[in-house]
Amino acid sequence: MTARLIGIDWGTSSFRAWLMDGTGAVIDSLAAPCGILSVEGGDFEGAFARLVGHWPAVPVIASGMIASRNGWVEAPYLPLPLDAAALAAGLVAHRAGGRVIHFVPGALGGSGGLPDVMRGEETEIAGHLAAGGADGLFVLPGTHSKWAQIEGARLTAFRTAMTGEAYALLMAHSILGRLAPARTPGEPEEATAGRAAAFARGLAAGRAEGALLARAFSARTLALTGRLAADEIGDYLSGLLIGDEVAAMLAGMPAFAAPLAVTVIGRGDLAARYAAALGECGASARIAPPGMAREGLRAIGKQAGLIP
Amino acid sequence: MTARLIGIDWGTSSFRAWLMDGTGAVIDSLAAPCGILSVEGGDFEGAFARLVGHWPAVPVIASGMIASRNGWVEAPYLPLPLDAAALAAGLVAHRAGGRVIHFVPGALGGSGGLPDVMRGEETEIAGHLAAGGADGLFVLPGTHSKWAQIEGARLTAFRTAMTGEAYALLMAHSILGRLAPARTPGEPEEATAGRAAAFARGLAAGRAEGALLARAFSARTLALTGRLAADEIGDYLSGLLIGDEVAAMLAGMPAFAAPLAVTVIGRGDLAARYAAALGECGASARIAPPGMAREGLRAIGKQAGLIP
Repeated sequence: MTARLIGIDWGTSSFRAWLMDGTGAVIDSLAAPCGILSVEGGDFEGAFARLVGHWPAVPVIASGMIASRNGWVEAPYLPLPLDAAALAAGLVAHRAGGRVIHFVPGALGGSGGLPDVMRGEETEIAGHLAAGGADGLFVLPGTHSKWAQIEGARLTAFRTAMTGEAYALLMAHSILGRLAPARTPGEPEEATAGRAAAFARGLAAGRAEGALLARAFSARTLALTGRLAADEIGDYLSGLLIGDEVAAMLAGMPAFAAPLAVTVIGRGDLAARYAAALGECGASARIAPPGMAREGLRAIGKQAGLIP
Repeated sequence: MTARLIGIDWGTSSFRAWLMDGTGAVIDSLAAPCGILSVEGGDFEGAFARLVGHWPAVPVIASGMIASRNGWVEAPYLPLPLDAAALAAGLVAHRAGGRVIHFVPGALGGSGGLPDVMRGEETEIAGHLAAGGADGLFVLPGTHSKWAQIEGARLTAFRTAMTGEAYALLMAHSILGRLAPARTPGEPEEATAGRAAAFARGLAAGRAEGALLARAFSARTLALTGRLAADEIGDYLSGLLIGDEVAAMLAGMPAFAAPLAVTVIGRGDLAARYAAALGECGASARIAPPGMAREGLRAIGKQAGLIP
């Protein structure tokens, strides 16, 4: 295998890179908790050299927040509709340390008169399409989850919900987290029947309409009145916030033919939670195979002529 | 004037006390940023002695979070409906330093199968009624705003929205506050036409339905796209969260005869913001005169026979 392309998905809190041959087969890969917020003094060139500087000097393509105003080189947001060809045409090339790094633009959308932006997820969607994926409605869970609509093999609409960030803030800093047991960062929590039931109860409360910040207060009052265990508060609140998001997004995104099917592009427990919420809301959920970011980087690189 | 009663409104972040004669006239008063969270080691007796220990040894009545599980002495929550007589019957007496302190119970309500609680606002509502106030729908803005319904001169229903706390967290810790200028705590912000317009734009976005955590993201995207100034982000987000709360509560609280009138029990800029939001949502708003907490403490004390 001859190395032909380095693809990097460089987000706010994580760094993932793949060294690929011309067919997209992975020669080497790396994942590190070196998101752009953890790069001291904004020395992205130094971080890049430390992380993958030992890889062959082939073209580099990078997507995610690294291409934002707070990242290494800003690649402007492109308007919708978008596909790999449009993203390839918008690449911003930057020369550093004898290499050329091509930064993938973000996407600019909007709904109800309000603008919306994404960085990185447009590449995962390009990967889904390059892997032969179909049109449809997609959710990419995360700190800021993205709901995306693909029609005619192009990204035509999306919306962001800051559910993951709100959950973390409410548990860490608000009165809701005060009754919950302190957690050791990084230590996995034990999955119990009580915690699964608390998540399901949260989903039910989350699907109700209106006044999210009133319903969220029940994560405290249920515990205060002995109807929710302290170690179930987090799961209940997670269910409530995800349930609210999923129900509202299914109602608010442009209509699809019933029965509604949604593809979850994501990993692990969070993807499973969104799939469960979608089921509760009457949609059929499918979790996409892993590797969409890498597939997307290769597809955009190919469109740009970086690899044959 | 002969001192007959000390009334204390002791909340999470503030302490207010009044020394009153038998008619409720104020002989002396004190306000201090000594909420229960700032009392070191939970030494409430010591804090009480420092703050008002020099006042005459008359009966003391105290409401607010001081009577919660995290306060000095817990007074249980009472079920609805509630009035000053029921609150008086539920007072919890505690002897300390040669004085008797009577703690006012909180209220336990609920809606949609979810419990809800309040501490302190039930006393302000008792004050409204003692001052000759009528039945109706009320909002008490704050860190956790309370919406309360009074029928037949009793508190019959209420709901909590943690809007103020969520606003503070999102501005201090989330990506929404990152583009906003750093503020000096305690320094008043200059009121500008741009900031007032940003609040109004937020209200409009807040009144839309569903996916609050998606709409809130627009506080960032509008700034990113040059459609909102950095120093207007806070006002826009404030309008958005208050607008969502007011619209949902007007739709969700038990129905009142149209045209809907709502009384705001609160002070200053925050009360004015809620009044503006109510107007935008088609309700007529009236800001109650100040002094409801003191009136309530006196009314409950009188019902309990602490003063003639």
